[in-house]
Amino acid sequence: MSGEDAPAQQQNAVDQKQETKPAEEPKAEPPKTESAPAAAAEAAATPAATTAEKVPEEETFTYRALVLTGYGGYDKVKLQVKKGKPALKAGEVLVRVKACGLNFADLMARQGLYDRLPSPPVTPGMECSGVVEAVGEEVTDRKVGDRVMVLNRFGLWQEVAAVPASHTFLIPEGMSFEEAAALPVNYITAYMMLFDFGNLRPNQSVLVHAAAGGVGIAATQLCKTVKDVTVFGTASASKHETISQGGVTHAIDYRTKDYVEEVRKISPKGLDIILDPLGGSDTHKAYNLLKPMGKLITYGAANMLAGQKKNLIAVAKNWYHQFSIHTLSLIQGNKSVCGFHLGYLDGETELISQVMSTVLDLYKQGKIKPRIDSTWHLEQVGDAMRKMQERNNIGKVILTTEPMPEEEKKEEAKKEDKKEDKKKEDKKKDDGKKEEKKDDKKKEEPKKEEKKEEEKKEEAKKEEK
Amino acid sequence: MSGEDAPAQQQNAVDQKQETKPAEEPKAEPPKTESAPAAAAEAAATPAATTAEKVPEEETFTYRALVLTGYGGYDKVKLQVKKGKPALKAGEVLVRVKACGLNFADLMARQGLYDRLPSPPVTPGMECSGVVEAVGEEVTDRKVGDRVMVLNRFGLWQEVAAVPASHTFLIPEGMSFEEAAALPVNYITAYMMLFDFGNLRPNQSVLVHAAAGGVGIAATQLCKTVKDVTVFGTASASKHETISQGGVTHAIDYRTKDYVEEVRKISPKGLDIILDPLGGSDTHKAYNLLKPMGKLITYGAANMLAGQKKNLIAVAKNWYHQFSIHTLSLIQGNKSVCGFHLGYLDGETELISQVMSTVLDLYKQGKIKPRIDSTWHLEQVGDAMRKMQERNNIGKVILTTEPMPEEEKKEEAKKEDKKEDKKKEDKKKDDGKKEEKKDDKKKEEPKKEEKKEEEKKEEAKKEEK
Repeated sequence: MSGEDAPAQQQNAVDQKQETKPAEEPKAEPPKTESAPAAAAEAAATPAATTAEKVPEEETFTYRALVLTGYGGYDKVKLQVKKGKPALKAGEVLVRVKACGLNFADLMARQGLYDRLPSPPVTPGMECSGVVEAVGEEVTDRKVGDRVMVLNRFGLWQEVAAVPASHTFLIPEGMSFEEAAALPVNYITAYMMLFDFGNLRPNQSVLVHAAAGGVGIAATQLCKTVKDVTVFGTASASKHETISQGGVTHAIDYRTKDYVEEVRKISPKGLDIILDPLGGSDTHKAYNLLKPMGKLITYGAANMLAGQKKNLIAVAKNWYHQFSIHTLSLIQGNKSVCGFHLGYLDGETELISQVMSTVLDLYKQGKIKPRIDSTWHLEQVGDAMRKMQERNNIGKVILTTEPMPEEEKKEEAKKEDKKEDKKKEDKKKDDGKKEEKKDDKKKEEPKKEEKKEEEKKEEAKKEEK
Repeated sequence: MSGEDAPAQQQNAVDQKQETKPAEEPKAEPPKTESAPAAAAEAAATPAATTAEKVPEEETFTYRALVLTGYGGYDKVKLQVKKGKPALKAGEVLVRVKACGLNFADLMARQGLYDRLPSPPVTPGMECSGVVEAVGEEVTDRKVGDRVMVLNRFGLWQEVAAVPASHTFLIPEGMSFEEAAALPVNYITAYMMLFDFGNLRPNQSVLVHAAAGGVGIAATQLCKTVKDVTVFGTASASKHETISQGGVTHAIDYRTKDYVEEVRKISPKGLDIILDPLGGSDTHKAYNLLKPMGKLITYGAANMLAGQKKNLIAVAKNWYHQFSIHTLSLIQGNKSVCGFHLGYLDGETELISQVMSTVLDLYKQGKIKPRIDSTWHLEQVGDAMRKMQERNNIGKVILTTEPMPEEEKKEEAKKEDKKEDKKKEDKKKDDGKKEEKKDDKKKEEPKKEEKKEEEKKEEAKKEEK
């Protein structure tokens, strides 16, 4: 961890390249022109020179950071150069970041749908891996040079990060930085859902939605550590071979089939555990698909994410269909409904450490292994987010802080020129999808109304009893 | 199991003695007078004679049965004499019942608040112990003479019962019939709540309401089978010594203290598991008292039971305050809400058998032992129910089918004479309580309104986020 990847050499200030889209938040971003990048890069390359008169020497330290500049599309996360070494408080360590993990919460956050991220401008990122570069006072269990993975509420998508030492975990031998950045959020989430709330035991059945996603793959691997567990996994057909090899017993193409029907064909009585990252009406389906003593664990509202920017219709629909349950119904069904989100557990250091330790033991025993879908440079964060949001990944999407080779930069620049066109296309697509969805909705709505009537009647019957 | 307790000698037809109260369901009960008992007892003592011309000889078999004749007060459960040996279907056994357990669901059922009991007239009773007297076809694992405990949806409060062999469990050596009748419902309920939904582990904390009740004592004993579990138990002060000896770490007098405050004093972060038999506003309190990753397991609505008869205000209040939870709130709190009731698990024979086997192992190891509060003759079922409903029991209330000694019968008869007075008193008390409660309610209501406003504001804040 020395001169060779000193931040000054990596400065790229790609954010300056990204064309502004002043349509939504013009105040937040000064107007920039397509000709700005060269000048900006020059300025960024000599930050100390331009501000020499007011900046103390120690603050010549610079590093690149991804910054969410406002809520919206992929282009709202910009690469910026920050000045000044982050000051370490007691109990903190400075981590030179090598790789970062992308999570669904980051996508929600970009649209302003995740309340654990402070208001923009702010650096997102809940997990990363790297090397300890400095230790603050009172830190006794970490030293300079330690390879660590980090779990934090936010702020890890940057080249250096000051974090509490208690939020770091030593990387086991043989684990790459990419793997280490892919592990914490997905495996802790899957582990706590399956083994704390879910109380998974031999011979049980589990439904894993988005089985090719980060949590999906982690959950599948963890299910396989228990004897004779049947895993139902949903994913588009092209991913079935991969997830089946990964341990999914019954792969279901949710795009062409009704997953409830498919599950019932194989397991007529229903399921023991359902992991639900979708929210909305899928939570209702999940509840009805539970066996007696079954556990529904909901951990997201991915159904809220429709398109690049906050889609008010999708959000409203999700709220409207949000699952709400009465205790008498739970009692009569002998069912459990749990909610999980690691982002709201950031005060539970001891609990998280215990789980992490168990998960790392499983890694060392070769029972689990993060699957990396793709690795992207910080400059490519928009494309990385897109890949995840459009569900084109199998496994984890990773950002690396390694400098982008010059050739790639040139290619990237060419792509930038095409981006304007792409954006226009995206907009058309998004608008088109909205129209389609409206039509779908119109078709669906009458059915739902019918169902609602039935549900009401059932409720009324129960009440009479 | 022979002549000495043949049913004919036990006939007592106490139901005939109980004065009718035609006020509520006059159609259900033919008018009877105070002078009826003697004649009725005579008739009951010679059932074969009076109906000899139409009844085949094998149907001279008679047995006493408690019958819920209509919804209402304690006197709605009457002792009747039934004729004809119950026919055995394939897979069934005939059990000569020795002792029966009383459960809260029986009290709810008497008021028409438990939908797993068919409409009156019907024999209640979910658990009993006894001896196998006959086995039906296809029964291979039970034989005449086996001592068994029985778990059934209803129908066990009688001297003989035909039940599926799969609903019977062999009584371990050394276990009395009373203990065997006290074990199934309470211990299976407590076990499944703590170890299936609750996933209880070392060092955790548990709140047990009504810690001196049947489930409360079972739950406390089961908690103590796990290392360093802290048990908070609520009960009136007079029961504290007993429940503390039984394993409760912190006994709380819910009548004089706010149990939420008491728990917070000792465990500021809240609790890992809360068992909630109360329902209504106590479920809300429980939810707020959970730690992150905490589990609330609700298994009843005892708050609905106010007074002997269905109290519409209490029922409505319980419905009004019934806990309902949105998934987003569960996610943000990392909490679990579960509902449990053994009565709705009657199809899960295999699951129940597994749990029963585990529970019986714990009994054999001396780790659990049912505590009997009191044993009552069938004739005394009203007083038995009263003791339980008025929370005067510590442990299980049991009915025995043993014949009542003649002297006791005479005493009982004297009591009967006084019952009319008692009933009048009860009515006064009940009415008085209602008035008190109304006053309480008036006092409470404004507070709750305030709280509701606060909750609404909080929700609104969350939604904004």
